[in-house]
Amino acid sequence: MIKFDRVASFGMARAGLLKTAHAMIETPVFMPVGTLGTVKAITPQNLKDTGSKIILSNTYHLMLRPGDELVEKAGGLRKFMGWDGAILTDSGGFQVMSLSALRKITEDGAIFQSHIDGSKHLLSPERSVQIQHSLGSTITMVLDECIKYPSTFQEAQSAMVLSSRWAKRSLDAYKKREGHGIFAIVQGGQYKELRLESTEQLKSFDFDGYAVGGLAVGEPQDLMIEVLSYTVNALPENKPRYLMGVGKPSDIVKAVQQGIDMFDCVLPTRSGRNGQAFVTGGSLNIRNLRYKEDFSPLDELCSCYTCKNFTKSYIRHLVKSNEILGAMLLSLHNLQHYQDLMKKIRNNIINGINLDTLLYEQDDL
Amino acid sequence: MIKFDRVASFGMARAGLLKTAHAMIETPVFMPVGTLGTVKAITPQNLKDTGSKIILSNTYHLMLRPGDELVEKAGGLRKFMGWDGAILTDSGGFQVMSLSALRKITEDGAIFQSHIDGSKHLLSPERSVQIQHSLGSTITMVLDECIKYPSTFQEAQSAMVLSSRWAKRSLDAYKKREGHGIFAIVQGGQYKELRLESTEQLKSFDFDGYAVGGLAVGEPQDLMIEVLSYTVNALPENKPRYLMGVGKPSDIVKAVQQGIDMFDCVLPTRSGRNGQAFVTGGSLNIRNLRYKEDFSPLDELCSCYTCKNFTKSYIRHLVKSNEILGAMLLSLHNLQHYQDLMKKIRNNIINGINLDTLLYEQDDL
Repeated sequence: MIKFDRVASFGMARAGLLKTAHAMIETPVFMPVGTLGTVKAITPQNLKDTGSKIILSNTYHLMLRPGDELVEKAGGLRKFMGWDGAILTDSGGFQVMSLSALRKITEDGAIFQSHIDGSKHLLSPERSVQIQHSLGSTITMVLDECIKYPSTFQEAQSAMVLSSRWAKRSLDAYKKREGHGIFAIVQGGQYKELRLESTEQLKSFDFDGYAVGGLAVGEPQDLMIEVLSYTVNALPENKPRYLMGVGKPSDIVKAVQQGIDMFDCVLPTRSGRNGQAFVTGGSLNIRNLRYKEDFSPLDELCSCYTCKNFTKSYIRHLVKSNEILGAMLLSLHNLQHYQDLMKKIRNNIINGINLDTLLYEQDDL
Repeated sequence: MIKFDRVASFGMARAGLLKTAHAMIETPVFMPVGTLGTVKAITPQNLKDTGSKIILSNTYHLMLRPGDELVEKAGGLRKFMGWDGAILTDSGGFQVMSLSALRKITEDGAIFQSHIDGSKHLLSPERSVQIQHSLGSTITMVLDECIKYPSTFQEAQSAMVLSSRWAKRSLDAYKKREGHGIFAIVQGGQYKELRLESTEQLKSFDFDGYAVGGLAVGEPQDLMIEVLSYTVNALPENKPRYLMGVGKPSDIVKAVQQGIDMFDCVLPTRSGRNGQAFVTGGSLNIRNLRYKEDFSPLDELCSCYTCKNFTKSYIRHLVKSNEILGAMLLSLHNLQHYQDLMKKIRNNIINGINLDTLLYEQDDL
């Protein structure tokens, strides 16, 4: 069991405190993504320095490489990767859909072929929960069937009802431990009727938190906010709410305004490896010629190691020369930018300041 | 001018102190290589933490990318790359030979085409010194004509006499500054007569240090030691001696025994990016299956960030998954290993302990 306390609220937005065995987490919280047991190009010490308390890691990737058995032998993922904060693991459902070959969904689970070596695997709700247990996850996610956007009502309905049955099986397979938790995932695509039905079904079980799944996989921001507007309202008030895989800074601000507490996204690290930086007022591509002789930091207002020590001109040189340090410095800065944004969001909520003040005009990369 | 004081000696081996404008350097010293203005996969802070006081950077690479004019505008290479230690720059001669296309050596200098965009450049002694001045190098190297091993007497002689003339022109073009210096480079291939002639010619000028060039480019270790045995003897005792581009740990120990004070090599960082680690007693390839479930650090006796926080099993997983963190952790560890070796070498010299105790049996990668 994990404990969630609401500290303040402003409109639908909430500031809270999530108490887990591995970290005391202030919400709204952003979880950097450590796909293979490493947040790419970042050391655990760097990660801690950005103020990160919890990261997301991927069950699908870790079950294939290095394998959950090895991670369990190492003493769990936290010990394996040298991270002393909390870890949320996804169930693997999303990657089965997006990465694996020859997948087949049955009542039992998802049968798929590894994208690495073509080996065959069954990911059932029970197996997913067991893997996440072996990984030593602080927060376990139920296995769900993910669908692409757009989907027909029929497709969304069929995936939703199967996901509900899988959620119950995931919960039954889950071993409760103090300071650990399991979250359900609301499905239903862009269909209000299905989202509300999914929410009602999942609320009848004793989950520690509720995720909204199947968003940010292609749909426009307006639709995402619309789905949240009716889905979040139907969720229990005293449990954390997690919007999976989101997003850009403006997505996060707007989702918090709809009552979301938790986020994860590859954007700060992936865009960092692509030479893109999130800065006060928007974002920039460091490859741009205009930065060639720009001897100012990425963001004058940022206090990260990158901004305190390096100029745009130097980082541009690194990125254009494919130097690893370029990816390191940009990833570090982008994570700091996200964590600073979360701090501002939380302060605004606590101090009753409209979150619209945190929306920039041009944060689209 | 830079100041070099010998602190102790043991046989031909010397422990010294090299006082420069940017660092007080204990010798024998190892200089990590920062080709393009970054020691690959390492932050300047990491570098400092390993005990590094001086790095080598490459004139050839920097004149092409990002260009010496830009680096000068940035306030010099140290400021550009956020490194507050000392920097030695090579002259570009070696890369002209090994990397560029369509090079032509004339009395005036080396005409070559960039390996990046095919643009044409002239690297003369004067231009090389001027670039190194723009970069703000603590130690400047004269331009020399580098030859491959093996070379005929004729080839080695012709390159040596040209290099001597270029050395004089380099010195004439060099602007003396307090705490900065310029080093000459002894050439002559594997021919004792030529090495001694080169040494005599260069000694007649007032250089701040002497490098032995044209070694470690293919010849066996025995031959390298043989060349050093007569070349170093002919060098002034009160000036630092630098063996360029060397080498493996055993090369370094043996060269110190011949009286060498300074080294640079890409090996710790390059092999780090290839999954290889230097450890007490030898070296290892972390991809090896035997490390799959090895939950001990790379080197129990090492106190670097990598060894204090991560296991072989985890690093193997990172390297096999092509994760950047693998290169980061191995490069950091290897540099620490090299700097720790230099510390041991220096302590042995000061305490009169035979350096043979620092030779491992199997450090060949």
